[in-house]
Amino acid sequence: MRPAIQIFPVAGIGDVVPGQDIHSLIVAGLAYSEITLVAGDILVVTQKIVSKAEGRLVDPRTVTPSHIAEMCAAQGHKDACYYEVVLRESKRIIKMDRGVLICETHHGLICANAGVDESNVDGGTHITLLPVDPDASARGIQAGVGVATGVAPAVIITDSFGRAWREGQVNIAIGVAGINPIEDYAGQDDPFGYRMQASMLAIGDEIAAAAELVMGKTDRIPVAVVRGVTYQTSPSAASALIRPANKDLFR
Amino acid sequence: MRPAIQIFPVAGIGDVVPGQDIHSLIVAGLAYSEITLVAGDILVVTQKIVSKAEGRLVDPRTVTPSHIAEMCAAQGHKDACYYEVVLRESKRIIKMDRGVLICETHHGLICANAGVDESNVDGGTHITLLPVDPDASARGIQAGVGVATGVAPAVIITDSFGRAWREGQVNIAIGVAGINPIEDYAGQDDPFGYRMQASMLAIGDEIAAAAELVMGKTDRIPVAVVRGVTYQTSPSAASALIRPANKDLFR
Repeated sequence: MRPAIQIFPVAGIGDVVPGQDIHSLIVAGLAYSEITLVAGDILVVTQKIVSKAEGRLVDPRTVTPSHIAEMCAAQGHKDACYYEVVLRESKRIIKMDRGVLICETHHGLICANAGVDESNVDGGTHITLLPVDPDASARGIQAGVGVATGVAPAVIITDSFGRAWREGQVNIAIGVAGINPIEDYAGQDDPFGYRMQASMLAIGDEIAAAAELVMGKTDRIPVAVVRGVTYQTSPSAASALIRPANKDLFR
Repeated sequence: MRPAIQIFPVAGIGDVVPGQDIHSLIVAGLAYSEITLVAGDILVVTQKIVSKAEGRLVDPRTVTPSHIAEMCAAQGHKDACYYEVVLRESKRIIKMDRGVLICETHHGLICANAGVDESNVDGGTHITLLPVDPDASARGIQAGVGVATGVAPAVIITDSFGRAWREGQVNIAIGVAGINPIEDYAGQDDPFGYRMQASMLAIGDEIAAAAELVMGKTDRIPVAVVRGVTYQTSPSAASALIRPANKDLFR
């Protein structure tokens, strides 16, 4: 039987530096990997290469730490300049304990260290920030790849986040274009006639997680193509995956 | 290019009733779906059919609600008997607010309503409980399918859980056999020479999430085969995915 879903790794993209055209790099990677996009394909792109192309890199030695950044450094494992960058990327601190900072970013994402990351950058000189507007980044990739290949895929920009209560990180969707990342079953009947009450699937996050299985952490596979998923193409935003404050028990 | 990962839906399993041999049903479903297992395949099985086969069904009208179950019903959307079943499946209440009960189950899983579920059962008479020992259930499926087909796949038993801060549910691993659900990169160098400090990927949860993309909520697809994932076969347990209490900021 034919598989319902296929996940293709996109290799050959190489190092990304500020100012590069991210969609041109992806188009070249697709050609290198001998992948021809078809209608319905979803392009999953790790945040790291988007941030690099968009110049979202900081040398932490260039920032002056605030008092609270110094306090973080006294309790944590990183230096005060690093924490200052994290605090500048945050609009709220959810938890600050045992050297870990759980932040709400300016996008409303809740994650460790506001998504500021030292790995897979350039060996330690710079750190990466999340894209300013990951949905806009996703739309730019969708449009650019569409013009170059004739197929405008749905696009999901991802990052690896930790979770409350569970060990290990999973890839999640921080930016989307051309795909509704939530599938809402509320009010539908299950096959036994039971009316489902609170069944929303976060398929944007599930597609992000699926794609990471071909990406990994140390492989140079920053992009994947996911083929065969059924989804709604209605205009949407990754903020649909963020629980509104008034419904959130864990703020 | 050949896809790195393929996900096959397993159809034809039909309704499951207590006492049925879950691995025989899966073997029949594989044949119906014309899927021949190969070495390295991962069988992803939704908790619902495992619970049904194992007789983990309760008619809530047969339980006598406690005082606190009556209090839950007064604030929530379900009746006191339902909440009593939830409380009996719990060893600790993490949060109780706005009609929602976030529980720690006897397995240590943290989720809404202790995994007690009304959907996809039999139209509302019975509710399902999580399997008593999902790792043991997974090992039983691995062994039974191995004897019947000559290939003993890795097995992941899944359920859909909500998350703190994020909207929608995602499928996660609650039982495993033949696969280490955590991939630990700590101490490895990234491609730029940076030594990664805290990089553990929850690939068990990512595979569970990927499989749900062919399962959905209203489709009768309770099983999927995931092919092409690289993983460690070392003996493990789904408890590896549960953050130890002394490392958990959100207990």
